Amino acid sequence: MTDVRLIGLDWGTSSLRAYLYDADGNVVATRQRAWGIRHLPEGGFAAALQAITVDWPACVAVAAGMVGSRQGWREVPYTNVPADAASIARGMQRADACDSHALWIAPGLCQRTPADVMRGEETQIIGALAQQPLYHASARFVLPGTHSKWATVADGRIVAFDTVMTGEVYALLMQHSILSAGVPVGAMPHNMEAFTRGVCVARDSGAEGAFSRLFSTRAQMLAGDLDAADVPDFVSGLLIGEEFRIARMRNDGDIAPLCLIGESALCDRYIVAAGHFGYGSPHVIADASAQGLWQLASAAGLLAKATLHSFSGVAT
Amino acid sequence: MTDVRLIGLDWGTSSLRAYLYDADGNVVATRQRAWGIRHLPEGGFAAALQAITVDWPACVAVAAGMVGSRQGWREVPYTNVPADAASIARGMQRADACDSHALWIAPGLCQRTPADVMRGEETQIIGALAQQPLYHASARFVLPGTHSKWATVADGRIVAFDTVMTGEVYALLMQHSILSAGVPVGAMPHNMEAFTRGVCVARDSGAEGAFSRLFSTRAQMLAGDLDAADVPDFVSGLLIGEEFRIARMRNDGDIAPLCLIGESALCDRYIVAAGHFGYGSPHVIADASAQGLWQLASAAGLLAKATLHSFSGVAT
Repeated sequence: MTDVRLIGLDWGTSSLRAYLYDADGNVVATRQRAWGIRHLPEGGFAAALQAITVDWPACVAVAAGMVGSRQGWREVPYTNVPADAASIARGMQRADACDSHALWIAPGLCQRTPADVMRGEETQIIGALAQQPLYHASARFVLPGTHSKWATVADGRIVAFDTVMTGEVYALLMQHSILSAGVPVGAMPHNMEAFTRGVCVARDSGAEGAFSRLFSTRAQMLAGDLDAADVPDFVSGLLIGEEFRIARMRNDGDIAPLCLIGESALCDRYIVAAGHFGYGSPHVIADASAQGLWQLASAAGLLAKATLHSFSGVAT
Repeated sequence: MTDVRLIGLDWGTSSLRAYLYDADGNVVATRQRAWGIRHLPEGGFAAALQAITVDWPACVAVAAGMVGSRQGWREVPYTNVPADAASIARGMQRADACDSHALWIAPGLCQRTPADVMRGEETQIIGALAQQPLYHASARFVLPGTHSKWATVADGRIVAFDTVMTGEVYALLMQHSILSAGVPVGAMPHNMEAFTRGVCVARDSGAEGAFSRLFSTRAQMLAGDLDAADVPDFVSGLLIGEEFRIARMRNDGDIAPLCLIGESALCDRYIVAAGHFGYGSPHVIADASAQGLWQLASAAGLLAKATLHSFSGVAT
């Protein structure tokens, strides 16, 4: 395995992925473990890094995600928006106590008003911009999930972003609230018609918003207008629709193209919702963290150093 | 104990209260048990009624609340809005298998668009209207709680209402979500300044709404701008503020007087929030269910029958 320049680490709360790159930025090997920062193996962060890179050549490593949070390996202060690969790279800090690799941890981003933070998503957006240069001028990136992120890119920089707690609130409502009473145990989202109804209720709630319509789920079920098995889809539609409603309220008349970054099944729901809010069909990128880590390493000037380090590592 | 005309039962999910009235509608005795419909004693509904009315004269009884739901003693179909005491009384149904008392159960109310339901709150509103005739022409009643109800009264009728899941969502967020991470265990709302900040963030969110600001709680805490111990107050302010924001969006320019029905500590928070949304100081009624049950019995013509039944009951 020659000509290796970089190890990239996408290190979140629940999982750790490692990428090995050649000199052209191509990923030549990928590994994944369940060693998120809350589920580390014995020996902690250093042991996890050693184990996931075992047999890989020593070279510089770049990490992004919750590994840079207060509960991570080292807390790396947030970089303010507007931000691009260069400003994020300037905020990187080197982790101590790492023998095998020079490890640099990327900062997340923060925004003052409304107060918001992200860690890891900024790296995906930087990667997506490298994949899709046409989005440099103007785009909105949506990263669906536990805490969905909506980020606005203008002139190649992330200028603003918002977090909506869609996935977490959905799980709480379906696991613990009155809305789940009577829903068959293990009922999973499956009915796109019920999902679409939820999306449209959120949209048509106008300035009142979907929070004012949550209980209508229960009322419709009691009235026989919503099948109990369809409640998860309807609530999913309400909450994902609410993300789009918020975006529309914030950016009325907005024509920035929409780009989704996330796994396919979830992105499919966002594509349906986008259609009901008058957005053109969004572009979908499954994962851009590998490319983002490479971009950050490049912007930080670590790739040249990486070569040297790699060679010295091989020599010892 | 003479001249007794009625027993009123406020029978909800978690508690049962019984009132004994004289011929003028004065409550001459009150009892409370933890026998909500999900916590019945052995023997179920009939045993609970027998036990809570032990030693009271046999007379007609009227019940309101979840006792009339699908999980209650008997499911009594909802009455549609617009509704008043007379139309609610017409919807009452007699429960079977009750030996000691002729028991009539009041219906709840339902609304088609947006789909919504209530059971028990309609009786409180009817009672409040009897206490405060000046609200007949036009008023908005707010019943804070697990599922807060906002009801609009016009020309003596409940014409529309909305449920906001404030209390339930607050509990879910504080017990299970990322927002509670780092919050001292057992931290209770105590800081009205933090509460007021939350109210104002909800208000200033405009058409985007407080759901888009939930995660700002976390971001402010990480930035050191919000003390972890103040998170419960801030979130309480966000969610209660959201109720007022929704109401303002729905009824812009609305000048109907606001009347709160609920326990004092919670109503105090709504009074603070009301001030930040430009409402005049709301009137507060601690509890109006006893009066509401009497009004419904009267509208149903049960008070005359009650006398007869009472006499025959005493004779046996």
